[in-house]
Amino acid sequence: MGKEVERAKIALQKALENRAVVMVSSGDPGVYGMAGIVLEVVANEKANIPVEIIPGVTAATAAASILGAPLVSDFAVISLSDLLTPWEKIEKRLEAASSADFSIVLYNPKSEGRIEPLIKAYEIMLKYIKPQTPVGVVRQAGREGEQVTVTTLKDLLNANIDMVTTIVVGNSATKIVNGKMITARGYDLSQSLL
Amino acid sequence: MGKEVERAKIALQKALENRAVVMVSSGDPGVYGMAGIVLEVVANEKANIPVEIIPGVTAATAAASILGAPLVSDFAVISLSDLLTPWEKIEKRLEAASSADFSIVLYNPKSEGRIEPLIKAYEIMLKYIKPQTPVGVVRQAGREGEQVTVTTLKDLLNANIDMVTTIVVGNSATKIVNGKMITARGYDLSQSLL
Repeated sequence: MGKEVERAKIALQKALENRAVVMVSSGDPGVYGMAGIVLEVVANEKANIPVEIIPGVTAATAAASILGAPLVSDFAVISLSDLLTPWEKIEKRLEAASSADFSIVLYNPKSEGRIEPLIKAYEIMLKYIKPQTPVGVVRQAGREGEQVTVTTLKDLLNANIDMVTTIVVGNSATKIVNGKMITARGYDLSQSLL
Repeated sequence: MGKEVERAKIALQKALENRAVVMVSSGDPGVYGMAGIVLEVVANEKANIPVEIIPGVTAATAAASILGAPLVSDFAVISLSDLLTPWEKIEKRLEAASSADFSIVLYNPKSEGRIEPLIKAYEIMLKYIKPQTPVGVVRQAGREGEQVTVTTLKDLLNANIDMVTTIVVGNSATKIVNGKMITARGYDLSQSLL
């Protein structure tokens, strides 16, 4: 964290020395990952180096697969880190996503160890989203030490949340069934084949 | 399309016959895929069958990796199909995402072959988003027959768009560099290592 530009420049330097270079990013490099900064650095240095981005499984869908199916309808992905994005813009996005009934995925819920952004996000979401709405909290999604909590928006702040946690807030159609979050899409299940 | 409940029920039936069943979904089954309906059908039939969801690369991030790095900041994913979601809700989400400067990914831009939802979405986005904003149009992302167009929001409707097309609309920080869409995150590139 904070060394992204340096990492991209070192990678480019090696590539300019005619090496085949791989930049490894956790999750999907195109979602809050290194893809953008690598392309920016290459362009900025006017280097004639081809860059291929290999997509991966991002924390949002990794967490969703563990929680059930909370993201099978429209969703918004928001990082609570205000290191690069002004807080006012993050707040506006939280308002927009909450008021339009998106499922919401929060990345970096405790950026730089600070809890204030999460508390503010919690308050904004509660202005629009019912307190009983299911929320999934996944630490280290798909990695060693994975921890999963299914709770409600109201009780979100009682969950164990840190920098490697992904939070998935359901929409108005999300329910808990057999411990899994499912965002109902409105299929008619009545036609019985069984 | 339209046979999702039936597919899920057949899969469950086979599982109840003690078979190990795999339901294959294109992209990520948790994003507009079969994950939700399978869990719903299993719960609805009160079947004691464990279901594991394996996440994959969804069209949004597959398309993003081909286009460059348009989704490295906050983004919203919206399907334009009003088969299961009322159009008013889709419209509200388009308004919210556009007005809050999210990058926007549109799935099912021509659902059931209809062009009207896309035209309405286009008009809503243009109320808030600058006409020169970069837009990527990817058909068959990562598959045989892949086609990529990088254009602007203003010219979106001139692109070749069908049901297997994913549209990625940049945010106010998205630019085109060397033909790639990059959403700048605000890194300081000036510290020169090279």
